[in-house]
Order: sequence, then structure tokens, then C-alpha cells
Amino acid sequence: MPHLRFLLHGDEQLIRPELERCGLREAVARVQHTDKRVLMDEKPGLALRRGKGSSMWNAVDAVQQGEADLVISAGNSGAFMVIARLLLGMRSGLDRPALVSPIPSRTGFTTFLDLGANIDCDANRLVEFAVMGDAFHRAAYTVENPRIGLLNVNTDPAKAGEVLKRANEQLGNVALGLNYRGLIAASAITSGEVDVVVTDGFTGNVALKAMEGTVRMIGGSLRDALSRSPAAVMGALLAQRPLNRVKQRFNRAPAALLVGLNRWAVKSHGAANVGDFTMALATATDMVTSNFGLELDRSLARLKPAALH
Amino acid sequence: MPHLRFLLHGDEQLIRPELERCGLREAVARVQHTDKRVLMDEKPGLALRRGKGSSMWNAVDAVQQGEADLVISAGNSGAFMVIARLLLGMRSGLDRPALVSPIPSRTGFTTFLDLGANIDCDANRLVEFAVMGDAFHRAAYTVENPRIGLLNVNTDPAKAGEVLKRANEQLGNVALGLNYRGLIAASAITSGEVDVVVTDGFTGNVALKAMEGTVRMIGGSLRDALSRSPAAVMGALLAQRPLNRVKQRFNRAPAALLVGLNRWAVKSHGAANVGDFTMALATATDMVTSNFGLELDRSLARLKPAALH
Repeated sequence: MPHLRFLLHGDEQLIRPELERCGLREAVARVQHTDKRVLMDEKPGLALRRGKGSSMWNAVDAVQQGEADLVISAGNSGAFMVIARLLLGMRSGLDRPALVSPIPSRTGFTTFLDLGANIDCDANRLVEFAVMGDAFHRAAYTVENPRIGLLNVNTDPAKAGEVLKRANEQLGNVALGLNYRGLIAASAITSGEVDVVVTDGFTGNVALKAMEGTVRMIGGSLRDALSRSPAAVMGALLAQRPLNRVKQRFNRAPAALLVGLNRWAVKSHGAANVGDFTMALATATDMVTSNFGLELDRSLARLKPAALH
Repeated sequence: MPHLRFLLHGDEQLIRPELERCGLREAVARVQHTDKRVLMDEKPGLALRRGKGSSMWNAVDAVQQGEADLVISAGNSGAFMVIARLLLGMRSGLDRPALVSPIPSRTGFTTFLDLGANIDCDANRLVEFAVMGDAFHRAAYTVENPRIGLLNVNTDPAKAGEVLKRANEQLGNVALGLNYRGLIAASAITSGEVDVVVTDGFTGNVALKAMEGTVRMIGGSLRDALSRSPAAVMGALLAQRPLNRVKQRFNRAPAALLVGLNRWAVKSHGAANVGDFTMALATATDMVTSNFGLELDRSLARLKPAALH
């Protein structure tokens, strides 16, 4: 991440000592002071009405004003989303943003959305997610025709619920130009059989957290197992480098990017550590310099003639 | 599993050679021949109308007739469920069975349901799942007051959807006698913070398959990493025993038990191998000899006065 500069919003008295500890100079990290903030449990609607002047609001506004290329927050997700939507605006043709994240798979990364921005979703919303996920995957991984799947408990459309049945039909519409592979089970999120997995925000959030919990649990079991006997400790030392690579690949809370807005807003975990935050930044800066905007416009241009809205 | 005897239903000409390969004598494994079977993609309704005399039907019927203590099938899940419900009947006070499975957690096992038997669930159904999960966990792990959580994207009831809000209120009713801990995120499935996680069959199925996929993916990455250099191979050899224990704990497709019926019916994966099937059998025979029936009746007796139905 060359030439990265930071604009930090919040209580200067709290931020300043941290910057000095990291040795970040004024030229690289500027602080815009405010002591107003959005609380973690504040209702999004309230944050929207009263949030003006808070660190979150100012950070999003700086992107809108052109002072920053992207905003990243580890704060209240719901508040961040509504403030970003209000200040940055939606891409023409889209209704609401989605949270998207790359998930490690057996063959690379799967683009997975929505991760919790939209709890209730109708078929049109799911089609919008597919269009956004398609553009995201093309821009992030320069894959020409990402394979797209719609999450269900099985692959048979006849057994699907009404919303999924309708979304499945719409996504199969050739006018959309998607490489749509139909309904898929959740094993496909990590198997590599598709590139993009589309679901509603409730299911996506549950699947993401279930997978993260599984990674943490296996990591903990491996740490225990590899410290239990002298032979195991020795073995772990010998295999340290490859084991660390596996750990780095999986043991990281991924950043979730808000897609569908006119500018970039990134949600990091509330419990993000330095490594998580660095990865969030890396993913986000990659996207800022990618051709995602062009890719999305190309896809959106096909969404309207397909007459789904 | 001492004194286990098998009654196998299906094409005798196909089963017989397999039994001989395993060295299982007639006294241990009896075959009840039929060449009629329920196909994997057959609609459950059709299987119910035309399934009589099929291997699946006969296997379930043998339990009803008292010839077997439990039935285990790796076949068509939907068909198995409706046939089991028809022939074995529901426990008085319950409406439909749920699929339940123990999931490895950081502290032991979490009882997780429903894993796909009921795609659409109202609040009453979720309360029934909690009652069944509670009894299951008490019987399987002799825990007196299992902590029960209701799966959501966050823990705040004010932000929950209508169905979850209502189920959350009902589960908090002290007359039910549950150790109910409220709404939980999916990280709780493996964290050990609760003993029983309740959700609808769609979400449960997605979470289960997402977790299974994650286990497979990490397993594959570890195998690759530990074979890439001589040092890593040596290290893996030294740590072989503890690594295998971790593998055995996680790398197994768990059996899903149908609870709420008058007798035991167990669903094994369509892709189950010998190890998976053995574990399914072990879990199921444990439950047959457990006091689950008594525990469930105790809980159901409280469900009615709580006036939720």
C-alpha cells in the first residue's frame, strides 16, 4: 500500500498518543478532532438524525467532499450503513447497498454477499446482489465471467421457497449477461465451485459468523494439540512456516465492503486487531484503484432492459 | 457398541457380497430383501403415496413393528422424514420432527437444530425446537440445565424480525422452565457460550454446510502445507498423533437425528463413508439407551400450561 495517507476522526487527545506510538507523522496521519460519537448500540435512525458532527459522520463526509478516497469504520454497522447511504448516495439503478467480503475457498476466494446489510430480501434485491457481486469479483480478481450461485438448502428449484424460486428465474434471464449457475448449497461458499455466492443479509451474516467460529475453534484445537507433547512441539516447530501460512489465510476477520454506493465505505469488525485492519485496508485500497465502477455500470446497464424492476 | 445387530433392507444380491466382505454373519446382520426403492430426487409426497414396500419404508416400519430399535438412512431426506412421521408418529404435543446434531464446540458439543426438516418456521415451531433441543442435550450429555440460545444476526431483541421477536418472548416465559439465554449470533454455535442453538431449518442447514465446508477446506490446506517441504513432512510425522485427534474431532460428517417422533430415526449423509456411518450409529445407539423420552415428556408437560399453542 504505497503513498497511503490517513485522516483520523475522533477525540484528538485519544488518537494523538497512539499515532506517536506508531511513529506516524503529521504528513501521513492527520487528525480531525470531534468529541461527538455514534455509540455501538445506538439505533441507526437516531444516528442518522443526530449523528452530524460525530466522528463517523465526519469520516463519511470526508469521502463525499473528496478529502478521502475511502472510509473505514469498526463502529456501529447499522449507523455506518445509513449514514454512508445518505451522504455518499446509491449508484443509479440500485436501491440499497450490500455488505460483501471475499471468503477463502479451496481454489482462491469466493465473493459472498449480503453479509447483513439487508435482513429481509425480495427477489429483486437478490438479483441486485448478484449484479454487484459479479462486478466486484470481476474487478477484484480480473475474472471475465464469474460463476454465480444463489444460496439454498439444495439445488432443486422445484423445492425452493417463493422468493428464491423467483430470483432463480430472474437470474437465469440471459439479458442480464450473468454466468448464473443456479441454486447451490452452502458447501459451495468454500468449495470453489462458484465464484460469487448470493444470499439475503440474515443468512449471509449467520453463515459468515458460523464459518469464522469454526476457523477459531479449529485454530484453538490445533494450538492445544501441538503443545501437548514434546514430539508435537518439535513437529510444530519444524512445520512452523507452512502452518503460519495456513493460519494467515484463514485466521483473519475479513473486511466487509459496502457496495452499491457512489464511493467506497468499508466495515471492519468491532473486535478487529491490527492485522485485521491492515487486511481491510489492503482489500479496500485494491478496490478503490480497481475498475469496479466501470464493471458495475456495465452490469447495471443490463439490469434495466432485463425489466426486472 | 456391544450386542449390536443389523437388519438391512434392500436388494439382497447387492447387500450379501458386502456383508461377506465385512465378515458379518447371519446372526449379526439379517437382510430383508426388496428391490423397490425411493429415489434420491423423488418428491417426498410421491414417496409417501407410492413408497410402501421400498427399502426405506420397510426399514422405518421395522422400528414401528418392534423388530428394530432405530432406523438409519443415507437416502432421500425429505422422503425419509415424511415416511418416518407417518409410520412412527409424533410425540404427543409436538407438530413436526426436527433434525438435530451435536456440533463440536470449544468446550464440548453444541446441540444444533433444526438442520433442514422445516424450512419455514413460525415462533411456536422455534419454541418446540428449543424444548426438543433442551431434552436432547440433557439426555445426551447429562447436563441438568442446558443454556439455550436463539440464532439471530445480533443479540438485541429490538432489532430482531417479527418471528424471532415473538419466539424470544415465548422462550423467556419462566413456565417453560428453560435456561434461556436470549438471541445469539452464529459464532455461539462453536464458542461454547450456550449448549443448544435453535434456528429454522433453512438457516440451520446453511450454517451446518458452511461449517462443514470450512472444516474440509482447512483440512485440505493443512494437508497441502504439511507435505510441501521435508521439514514440514517431518514435523507432521512428529505431531501425527495429536493432529489425527484434531482431524477425528472435526473431519466427520455428523449424523442428524430426527427428534419429536415416538421412535428413533437417524439421517446419515448421502455421501457418508464407513467412519461417518459408524459415528452416526454410535450417537444413535447412545440416544436409544438414554432417557431422552422421559426428558422430552418432562419438557412437553411444561409446554402446554405455558399456553403457547
